[in-house]
Amino acid sequence: MHFLVLHGPNLNLLGSREPGLYGSASLEQINADLHQRATALGVSIDCVQSNHEGALVDRIQQGRGAVDGIVINAAAYTHTSIALRDALLAVAIPYVEVHLSNIHAREPFRHHSHLADRAVGVICGFGAGSYLLGLEGLVAHLRARP
Amino acid sequence: MHFLVLHGPNLNLLGSREPGLYGSASLEQINADLHQRATALGVSIDCVQSNHEGALVDRIQQGRGAVDGIVINAAAYTHTSIALRDALLAVAIPYVEVHLSNIHAREPFRHHSHLADRAVGVICGFGAGSYLLGLEGLVAHLRARP
Amino acid sequence: MHFLVLHGPNLNLLGSREPGLYGSASLEQINADLHQRATALGVSIDCVQSNHEGALVDRIQQGRGAVDGIVINAAAYTHTSIALRDALLAVAIPYVEVHLSNIHAREPFRHHSHLADRAVGVICGFGAGSYLLGLEGLVAHLRARP
Amino acid sequence: MHFLVLHGPNLNLLGSREPGLYGSASLEQINADLHQRATALGVSIDCVQSNHEGALVDRIQQGRGAVDGIVINAAAYTHTSIALRDALLAVAIPYVEVHLSNIHAREPFRHHSHLADRAVGVICGFGAGSYLLGLEGLVAHLRARP
Amino acid sequence: MHFLVLHGPNLNLLGSREPGLYGSASLEQINADLHQRATALGVSIDCVQSNHEGALVDRIQQGRGAVDGIVINAAAYTHTSIALRDALLAVAIPYVEVHLSNIHAREPFRHHSHLADRAVGVICGFGAGSYLLGLEGLVAHLRARP
Amino acid sequence: MHFLVLHGPNLNLLGSREPGLYGSASLEQINADLHQRATALGVSIDCVQSNHEGALVDRIQQGRGAVDGIVINAAAYTHTSIALRDALLAVAIPYVEVHLSNIHAREPFRHHSHLADRAVGVICGFGAGSYLLGLEGLVAHLRARP
Amino acid sequence: MHFLVLHGPNLNLLGSREPGLYGSASLEQINADLHQRATALGVSIDCVQSNHEGALVDRIQQGRGAVDGIVINAAAYTHTSIALRDALLAVAIPYVEVHLSNIHAREPFRHHSHLADRAVGVICGFGAGSYLLGLEGLVAHLRARP
Amino acid sequence: MHFLVLHGPNLNLLGSREPGLYGSASLEQINADLHQRATALGVSIDCVQSNHEGALVDRIQQGRGAVDGIVINAAAYTHTSIALRDALLAVAIPYVEVHLSNIHAREPFRHHSHLADRAVGVICGFGAGSYLLGLEGLVAHLRARP
Amino acid sequence: MHFLVLHGPNLNLLGSREPGLYGSASLEQINADLHQRATALGVSIDCVQSNHEGALVDRIQQGRGAVDGIVINAAAYTHTSIALRDALLAVAIPYVEVHLSNIHAREPFRHHSHLADRAVGVICGFGAGSYLLGLEGLVAHLRARP
Amino acid sequence: MHFLVLHGPNLNLLGSREPGLYGSASLEQINADLHQRATALGVSIDCVQSNHEGALVDRIQQGRGAVDGIVINAAAYTHTSIALRDALLAVAIPYVEVHLSNIHAREPFRHHSHLADRAVGVICGFGAGSYLLGLEGLVAHLRARP
Amino acid sequence: MHFLVLHGPNLNLLGSREPGLYGSASLEQINADLHQRATALGVSIDCVQSNHEGALVDRIQQGRGAVDGIVINAAAYTHTSIALRDALLAVAIPYVEVHLSNIHAREPFRHHSHLADRAVGVICGFGAGSYLLGLEGLVAHLRARP
Amino acid sequence: MHFLVLHGPNLNLLGSREPGLYGSASLEQINADLHQRATALGVSIDCVQSNHEGALVDRIQQGRGAVDGIVINAAAYTHTSIALRDALLAVAIPYVEVHLSNIHAREPFRHHSHLADRAVGVICGFGAGSYLLGLEGLVAHLRARP
Repeated sequence: MHFLVLHGPNLNLLGSREPGLYGSASLEQINADLHQRATALGVSIDCVQSNHEGALVDRIQQGRGAVDGIVINAAAYTHTSIALRDALLAVAIPYVEVHLSNIHAREPFRHHSHLADRAVGVICGFGAGSYLLGLEGLVAHLRARP
Repeated sequence: MHFLVLHGPNLNLLGSREPGLYGSASLEQINADLHQRATALGVSIDCVQSNHEGALVDRIQQGRGAVDGIVINAAAYTHTSIALRDALLAVAIPYVEVHLSNIHAREPFRHHSHLADRAVGVICGFGAGSYLLGLEGLVAHLRARP
Repeated sequence: MHFLVLHGPNLNLLGSREPGLYGSASLEQINADLHQRATALGVSIDCVQSNHEGALVDRIQQGRGAVDGIVINAAAYTHTSIALRDALLAVAIPYVEVHLSNIHAREPFRHHSHLADRAVGVICGFGAGSYLLGLEGLVAHLRARP
Repeated sequence: MHFLVLHGPNLNLLGSREPGLYGSASLEQINADLHQRATALGVSIDCVQSNHEGALVDRIQQGRGAVDGIVINAAAYTHTSIALRDALLAVAIPYVEVHLSNIHAREPFRHHSHLADRAVGVICGFGAGSYLLGLEGLVAHLRARP
Repeated sequence: MHFLVLHGPNLNLLGSREPGLYGSASLEQINADLHQRATALGVSIDCVQSNHEGALVDRIQQGRGAVDGIVINAAAYTHTSIALRDALLAVAIPYVEVHLSNIHAREPFRHHSHLADRAVGVICGFGAGSYLLGLEGLVAHLRARP
Repeated sequence: MHFLVLHGPNLNLLGSREPGLYGSASLEQINADLHQRATALGVSIDCVQSNHEGALVDRIQQGRGAVDGIVINAAAYTHTSIALRDALLAVAIPYVEVHLSNIHAREPFRHHSHLADRAVGVICGFGAGSYLLGLEGLVAHLRARP
Repeated sequence: MHFLVLHGPNLNLLGSREPGLYGSASLEQINADLHQRATALGVSIDCVQSNHEGALVDRIQQGRGAVDGIVINAAAYTHTSIALRDALLAVAIPYVEVHLSNIHAREPFRHHSHLADRAVGVICGFGAGSYLLGLEGLVAHLRARP
Repeated sequence: MHFLVLHGPNLNLLGSREPGLYGSASLEQINADLHQRATALGVSIDCVQSNHEGALVDRIQQGRGAVDGIVINAAAYTHTSIALRDALLAVAIPYVEVHLSNIHAREPFRHHSHLADRAVGVICGFGAGSYLLGLEGLVAHLRARP
Repeated sequence: MHFLVLHGPNLNLLGSREPGLYGSASLEQINADLHQRATALGVSIDCVQSNHEGALVDRIQQGRGAVDGIVINAAAYTHTSIALRDALLAVAIPYVEVHLSNIHAREPFRHHSHLADRAVGVICGFGAGSYLLGLEGLVAHLRARP
Repeated sequence: MHFLVLHGPNLNLLGSREPGLYGSASLEQINADLHQRATALGVSIDCVQSNHEGALVDRIQQGRGAVDGIVINAAAYTHTSIALRDALLAVAIPYVEVHLSNIHAREPFRHHSHLADRAVGVICGFGAGSYLLGLEGLVAHLRARP
Repeated sequence: MHFLVLHGPNLNLLGSREPGLYGSASLEQINADLHQRATALGVSIDCVQSNHEGALVDRIQQGRGAVDGIVINAAAYTHTSIALRDALLAVAIPYVEVHLSNIHAREPFRHHSHLADRAVGVICGFGAGSYLLGLEGLVAHLRARP
Repeated sequence: MHFLVLHGPNLNLLGSREPGLYGSASLEQINADLHQRATALGVSIDCVQSNHEGALVDRIQQGRGAVDGIVINAAAYTHTSIALRDALLAVAIPYVEVHLSNIHAREPFRHHSHLADRAVGVICGFGAGSYLLGLEGLVAHLRARP
């Protein structure tokens, strides 16, 4: 099984960006941890980050027939992008939504997600751990399917 | 008279994307049908698709002085993009808003359009036919102007 | 195939009623244009206007087993009549909702339709042309059904 | 004691209209059952149906001094007609509101009734049985009055 | 100058209908008072009542070219009828909206009027006097026009 | 067939509690009437009252496999308890919601029920009679099932 | 009978202030017209204007035991002053609310009045005539009291 | 480290309750899986279920000084219980909120949680796996604290 | 005169629970202060705390005929329990609502109380003093009754 | 310690103003009671009433450095004046908000206070006793400060 | 050109009032800076402060024919005074709205201004600098007019 | 000190785009004016325009460590882009939000900004002057910092 891990806008600044809120791990470290966990789970992953909504849509479309699942932290686009939702539904690939911070503890405009109701599951608040739990949960979900 | 037909995000997947909802015609087929109808109406068209909001804005801007009308299916950006609205108003080219599906029968967030109130007209629910009716209606509208 | 074209309240005043908003064509002219288009499309139509909600409900009910589709401009009742919605659903005849003006450019209470979500499609803003496009779209829709 | 049973718009189509939602009994059968139940309860009834809001208002007004209670299924007018409410209050005849289907399980616009807060009681969801229970409840209510 | 006085649904019951709320004057007495005041003002009037929304629309339409102004108490239809609003705007006859009771002191659904924002003026709370003041105000308004 | 009749919080005070609102019958009298009606209908019933939300949930759960239907007056919990809703859905036993008073005539917070949309039907406003009608309606509903 | 006519903030500028909206009559002319009408009605009046909410409250309080009714155009304070409402209720003097313009045709924040629901009646839209009609209506109302 | 796993109302019916929604695993199986995972993580757990809001509050209070973290699936009480929120804050024990189903894909009243904004993190949609991921995430969170 | 003092959920933790918000006095100390103040006022009191909504309802019901007034701090149930409101109204015992903290300075969901509009009075923000002022105010209120 | 007691608009009419709502005590009596209670508490007070929002703001500003606390019944300005809120915060003097009537039992526009969230505490419903309890509570609050 | 600078309620306390929020400059210093900047711009100014809404209205009215523009910081009245809006529109003098603090970063009730939509421009957040920028911008705006 | 001036979508069309709304100055002229003002203020600037949200995010990120402040007119993205907000907060560079037109005088969807509450200040309505005032205000703000 092969997975796509998508990082949305401004996540390339992780580590130096508001570490009290997002933690001190850089995106490179998170990706490295994800690769390690993927190996432990017996799967492979690709990790992509972009600040461009259209580029994220393009990348999801390229996943058709190529990836078995997507772990997505759409960051700000979680709350504003119907295009990402439509892309995920168009390719019909199971996905998990993750967030570093607990979005329920933040501004009200971060409480609604355009992606959540069609996701397999949603995980937030565990820092970089949210990605690891999300990958683990998605692998288990897919392996449990009949 | 020359027209621009704009297709928004994820419409490049038409035919394979949720055919129960969007029909089985591919974007190529829709464009071919549009060219045929344009010829029958005695006008010419350009058809463009992009997943990038900014690219669609750029394309609309390039239409100034070059196109007489726009048929736009902004897809997901219909509901989230004020930039597209501003671009259409900035170039002051008459446009028609079309949708493949009946957006009033779908999720509430698809019921509002940032483009509709300044359009010549709005057409939805006729599948690929919405484009053909939109082009026909726009041509008739422009020809009826004094 | 036989169709019913229904005109709601105050549409009998077309031509003299706020022509800047509704155009200068009279209802008779619109009906004549519709008959001409129907002939071109190889179908027949009946055109009926009433200011009475109950009379419109009665007329829809009489369509059961007699008409293949309905083109309806319910005018003010679009926004206030659940009885018309129920009548259309009770007879289970495919219908298209049309409006002369672009209702999205008018008062907020005209933005919601009790009929739209169950229609085949919705067309507004093309003046009398909305009816012609609606008939054409409905015929095409019915002919495309397997 | 004499009662009026009022059926609102589209109820004349019962039996053939969306039987999965409204049941397979025709309005004639429901009226026959009501007459039978009335006889068993020792009361008499008149049953009237109309698709016209004004006709229903007229009929309620004619009940002044002539009927002891009203069982009303105003159908679509339940949710849109203040005129019916005013007529019922103007004649000051006790009434019961009934619905065939469970209106709480349907579209949100069917959740509010203009009649309910001034009714003796409200019954919904028992199909044609709602009328029988409504008549029985109203008779018992009136007989229990000091 | 000739005027139309329109009484909406249930106003035919005035005098016997909830006199604490609407006063003890019958509709005949109100019409007689209106004729007397009209004579004093040097104008003539026609008074019409109907429980049917469509009939009120018909009657307004007939006023085109025949009446100089309308005094309308649309009663319950004040709050639910866009068709009446459209009829009044279609004939473009100046009108005054009146109510017997003070609608601001009643149920919230009586606080909004579909007619008020396009009326010359609105008068409520003076019982039958609201009609007299409305006619007087409308005559004065029309005579003051340049 | 065996039925469970559930009375929610404060209904143990019936008779002495605000008799103008809830009637003068005690809960014992209502239960006695219910047993008599059950016998007439050829069914048996158990009647239970509790002020504890959790105890009501427990009692519903014990009904699995033991009762054919539930008549529930959840009183205050009607408006606040999702746990009761979940219990009723978990045991999948058909139920009818009843209220002594007409809840539509009371405070706005009593207008919404967490139970109504999944009930067979809803009855309110007939005092103790609501229970009898509810039992009768539920028995008829179950007997009418194919 | 003696009456108080109260003019709220900015009404001292009438005539020169936005004449298209408020008319060309100065406050002095309106007061002169009011005195003339009062004489014709056989009553006397005092006319007071202030830009100060507190001063208007003071003046209302001074009316206790001294005036039989109040005609008030509270202007901007109509929409923001609960203190004026409380003053009018505290002195328990019948009052009529008047407005020069049709407030329903203006900004939404002018649609709500803190005074209207406790007034005898409300009149708006007749320019300076609103005051005259208001005084006439109030005199008639008081004379009709048993 | 010792943890408390709290199951809210109706979760004792898991396995037999709407398996399409909640899965076919019984609560015993979930608890067994949790014990196994706890052992693997080198921690111990207690698992408690109750249908009573007050009993859940009592149990949380007993955790003070005894448990290092709480994994809570409050089920229906998630959306209605401020008392549970207050109990969790009063004992100041870090907690994770979990749900079997994806609550964002269900009824709107399940979209808001009284517990989420003060939790370490929230996980939903992974069936029984949500508990395992929640325990794992909480252990990792606590071990990562300086 | 005899009074009941009711403490709602989590108030048994006072002193140790978020002392910055709720103060450092334990519930025992508050009760002791209340007994001392009761003695000074010449009345007696019973103090009861429970985390169970149903138990609080039971306790209020037991007060019928036994207590002259209730001082209630329903804590979290203030905002969620209609059952407590109904119990207080059912026993018809005058009550005062008190809160330790100023609930208007806290989360929005604490701004609404289901009990306040039927209370004699409401006091919040004085810490343990709120109880003492509430008892004093209630005693004075009852003694001032004719 | 010295305190300021502020009475807002229309409170100068107490005793004669709607005594069923506000009690029969005059403002002079309330002030006399306050002076007596102040003496008993070992503090002094100044009592001021004004109908002018600006005058109340002026008076609060004069309290800087001169008073230790404020007991304020802002009456109607409670709900409309941000200027009073700003004045109280600008002088940074602890204050208590009091009301004679239970504002939660009155019109919805009296349920929100611009002052409450920054007050030490809020007391309402005890008639003139609210002032006495407010003064007592404020003195106790200030004496308890470290 | 001559300008009026208006300071609303509580701005006379600047410097000592919450300096963290409003800065440490006194109103005298701000006025001095404004005079200096006015001189540099070649215009003259009058500076006025009042805590009284009515006094501010009076002062604006006196500006008719005397001032070319107004720089207004209405402070709390920004959000509550329609009278100030009406005064500014009545005199038809161009004005700029300024605020010391960034009102978008403060309480929600400070986010709406009754003055902003009719102002030339709005400036906030630059402390005392907001006035200087506002004067500069207004002068430039007026000088740029044809 | 070095500054970044960011122009959002469609601002490249300034001068030719709706000049009645946005003025007749081209973006080149505005940039030239900004360079001149920067020189006068003793600072340097870079000016960048893009129609792409992602490109604007990229450009803000590049500013880290390179620019001391940002003047941003995000145009349509002001109202729809949380990604821009997050980018500005991530780089923690002080910024000022500016708009050519007075956004409070335009469509409601332009009244809310995702950027305003975290900006140093906001300026709108002065046409191209808004940029100049914004730069001046930002420079003064930074120089005034201790």
